[in-house]
Amino acid sequence: MHPQRWGTPDAATVLPDSALGLVDLAFGLQDSPAVTGATPPRIALDESLLDGLRAIVGDAHVLVDDATRTLRTRGKSTPDLLRARAGDLTDAPDAVVRPSGHDEVATLLAWATEHRVAVVPFGGGTCVTGGLAARRDGFAGLVSLDLVRMKRLLDVDMVSMTATLEPGLRGPEAEALLAGHGLTLGHYPQSFEHASIGGFAATRSSGQSSAGYGRFDAMVVALTAATPTGTMTVGSSPANAAGPDLRQLLLGSEGAFGVITSVTVRVRRAPAETSYEGWRWPSFAAGSDAMRTLAQAGLLPTVIRLSDESETAINLADPAAIGGSGDGCLMITGYEGTAAQVASRRAEVTTVLTELGGVPLGAEPGEKWSHGRFGAPYLRDALLDHGVLVETLETATFWSRRERLYADVKAALTSSLGEGSLVLCHVSHVYETGCSLYFTVAARQGDDPIAQWQVAKAAASDAMIAAGATITHHHAVGTDHRPWFAREIGEVGVRVLRAVKAELDPAGILNPGVLIP
Amino acid sequence: MHPQRWGTPDAATVLPDSALGLVDLAFGLQDSPAVTGATPPRIALDESLLDGLRAIVGDAHVLVDDATRTLRTRGKSTPDLLRARAGDLTDAPDAVVRPSGHDEVATLLAWATEHRVAVVPFGGGTCVTGGLAARRDGFAGLVSLDLVRMKRLLDVDMVSMTATLEPGLRGPEAEALLAGHGLTLGHYPQSFEHASIGGFAATRSSGQSSAGYGRFDAMVVALTAATPTGTMTVGSSPANAAGPDLRQLLLGSEGAFGVITSVTVRVRRAPAETSYEGWRWPSFAAGSDAMRTLAQAGLLPTVIRLSDESETAINLADPAAIGGSGDGCLMITGYEGTAAQVASRRAEVTTVLTELGGVPLGAEPGEKWSHGRFGAPYLRDALLDHGVLVETLETATFWSRRERLYADVKAALTSSLGEGSLVLCHVSHVYETGCSLYFTVAARQGDDPIAQWQVAKAAASDAMIAAGATITHHHAVGTDHRPWFAREIGEVGVRVLRAVKAELDPAGILNPGVLIP
Repeated sequence: MHPQRWGTPDAATVLPDSALGLVDLAFGLQDSPAVTGATPPRIALDESLLDGLRAIVGDAHVLVDDATRTLRTRGKSTPDLLRARAGDLTDAPDAVVRPSGHDEVATLLAWATEHRVAVVPFGGGTCVTGGLAARRDGFAGLVSLDLVRMKRLLDVDMVSMTATLEPGLRGPEAEALLAGHGLTLGHYPQSFEHASIGGFAATRSSGQSSAGYGRFDAMVVALTAATPTGTMTVGSSPANAAGPDLRQLLLGSEGAFGVITSVTVRVRRAPAETSYEGWRWPSFAAGSDAMRTLAQAGLLPTVIRLSDESETAINLADPAAIGGSGDGCLMITGYEGTAAQVASRRAEVTTVLTELGGVPLGAEPGEKWSHGRFGAPYLRDALLDHGVLVETLETATFWSRRERLYADVKAALTSSLGEGSLVLCHVSHVYETGCSLYFTVAARQGDDPIAQWQVAKAAASDAMIAAGATITHHHAVGTDHRPWFAREIGEVGVRVLRAVKAELDPAGILNPGVLIP
Repeated sequence: MHPQRWGTPDAATVLPDSALGLVDLAFGLQDSPAVTGATPPRIALDESLLDGLRAIVGDAHVLVDDATRTLRTRGKSTPDLLRARAGDLTDAPDAVVRPSGHDEVATLLAWATEHRVAVVPFGGGTCVTGGLAARRDGFAGLVSLDLVRMKRLLDVDMVSMTATLEPGLRGPEAEALLAGHGLTLGHYPQSFEHASIGGFAATRSSGQSSAGYGRFDAMVVALTAATPTGTMTVGSSPANAAGPDLRQLLLGSEGAFGVITSVTVRVRRAPAETSYEGWRWPSFAAGSDAMRTLAQAGLLPTVIRLSDESETAINLADPAAIGGSGDGCLMITGYEGTAAQVASRRAEVTTVLTELGGVPLGAEPGEKWSHGRFGAPYLRDALLDHGVLVETLETATFWSRRERLYADVKAALTSSLGEGSLVLCHVSHVYETGCSLYFTVAARQGDDPIAQWQVAKAAASDAMIAAGATITHHHAVGTDHRPWFAREIGEVGVRVLRAVKAELDPAGILNPGVLIP
């Protein structure tokens, strides 16, 4: 991945002139080039410590060159990109170490505990919540524990329909290995092309097909984690009554309790057929109610998402059409499975949505969404190049609080970012009892765009907590969400997490400052 | 509930002569009367401590009479009943206290911490794993914290389809309150008539309709617990990525971390139609494979259960028919919902089961099962009266290990209980990746039936752990499962639970000796 941008250069979005004109109209085009040639700070780890690392993983897998260190600096939030574009590499690790498997990870963590070296587990590097910017004060140095060599499909159980995967597998790599057995995980977050299995587990990721395949944490039936004080393996059965579910304590632990070295996930047969369609709704509220009806009737498609009026008008799925069409609100429904499954669920959903007043738009909007489903982060880079501040955040709540949450977060963002800013929203994950709300904002960058965003983000976060909603539906806590996370789980919840952390990682070497308030 | 038997006297099972004859043939009838007139030990709590309790909950709600203390002694496992029948009341609490709500529970726990008084939260008293037999050594006394006054429906959210319930509500009481809103929880474990909402949550209960309504832990979207060091409230949304899921740390915590004082659960519309049917399969393996096919195709009925050859032959659902009919294996399928939902799912399931070789038996076996679904514990009492040792245990595993687990646990029980013993099994909870196995045994009681059972249970438990299965699918850890629970979650898992316990309950007053190895 490019150190200052999302993804790979050949997939970069080039804004057509029509779009540039509109961007100029909306925000005023500003030239906002990235600094080149910045180098990371001096390596803090001394040679004897580097030798210690080499003794564990081998010389070839302790990397200290500037390019590698730069590539392992922070994640891909807009503040991360703005810092990277400004040449700020202060969070660069001293070294990047690449263990070959569980045992080397375990040895590394014991070694790091002994030598007080901070360790940041690194999967795909797509974090957008500051989860790769650990504190380093009080430590002899900071290493990025890169899981890039741990990419095996360890086991496939075609009877139980489970697969055991190593954490370094990127989304497409995992899917390719599973496809060899006719299987799929069905986990397609926007970061799919670059994010890793370990990251999905450590952050409780949820993909665009969550209505059909479930969230990642719901797919995991067993997992193994190396911690500084020993290995934890949990998951003897799909579900049980043997005490608290310790799987759910490691899922979402963001590398602060241990390094997840394998996960056993429920898999499905790769779909024979996929079909995506569009629907139009008179309002965001009407479309949301329709989603709720489907969820509570047990009739969800594989994919279901709904853009609010603003997002529908902007049509983010297609840069060439920015500012394009759109009355009301666009909903995308997707069906995956056997031909019979697709036909049957599609018929049921179509009946319900038609009865509720949805207007079918046919396959075209669905195909367009499907084609562009991983593309938004590239569009962000193109807009950052022109001095537009673009960022996203998301939350979730129960259905009865959806309307208030939507209004309050939107008002907080709009009022903070000021006139001329754009605040768009969609629902992309639904449950019987509630749904997510995902906001995208665009505004003209001021003199200090990072501070500008932080103020807006804080206002939005305050609104979420005040509405009784969560600070994050699928992007984890990292460092950015910690203050609000503490409010969400309360003082006793925080103490519980600290107690678990102290037990598993007594020296606090794992991701210092991440997750735990 | 009767102190030495299950449930209420008017629901007691009377074995018909035909059944008695068969029991005599199989095990030899023995007269096995229960001791009457036993009294609990002297009250260890001194008067000043009792006054302390009275100051918190009021004089009327601190009960120290023998009858009440006897009724709060242990749970309803067969060893519990055998001890009760033998007049052994050594585990009786010193007092039974009945708080009116969350605040009094919180005050009680702080008080108990200060005065080193052990506290056993008490819901329905139906525990079958020794979870109500806490240690009292090192404590000034032991009180049963009876949630019987906490029976309110605190909130109904018809938009989100959630309800907030207090923990003391028994199953039928909760359903009656929800029925007033046209709703149901759909949670019907065998203990339904007597067990409580708090107990369902604290033990990760799973009901007979779990295929349709889900396990209890999957229904809970939020909960509040009073702990000795503060109140914990978790659940801001149906699902999120805000760190580990702390709901899943309190669910299954068996009163060892705190007292659950309210739960918010997902509810459904009460079904307009219910329909139960029977199917016959040539073998347990063939029927299990059919269940797996349905689960993996996303086509589960609301209820699905399958008896093995032995259980089918014995036909436990109907005491009058004991030793009755039965070739092959009996499966029960149940459908609940709107008429359309029932018809549609029934048609889909019928097609699959017919294709796989199932023989439809019509409604009669289904109605018979439905009629007797909460009756087995009464049958156990009737058999205990005649000197037959009857007990159950259950486990769960992934589909690929099901056959081995079944064979190994059955062999362990049969070999331990000896010739003439009966070992029956059914599958009653299925998932995409695996299922539960529930065993019922019957044997002639020897001189020390508790020891006789403990040896058999240990052999079965060893077999579960050796097969990589769980020690309990839906009956919690209690005190009986602790050694195997420790093996299931490993040394690091045990340390994590101990750390959480130490943080929330530093004096260890909550359910000492329960859950935490």
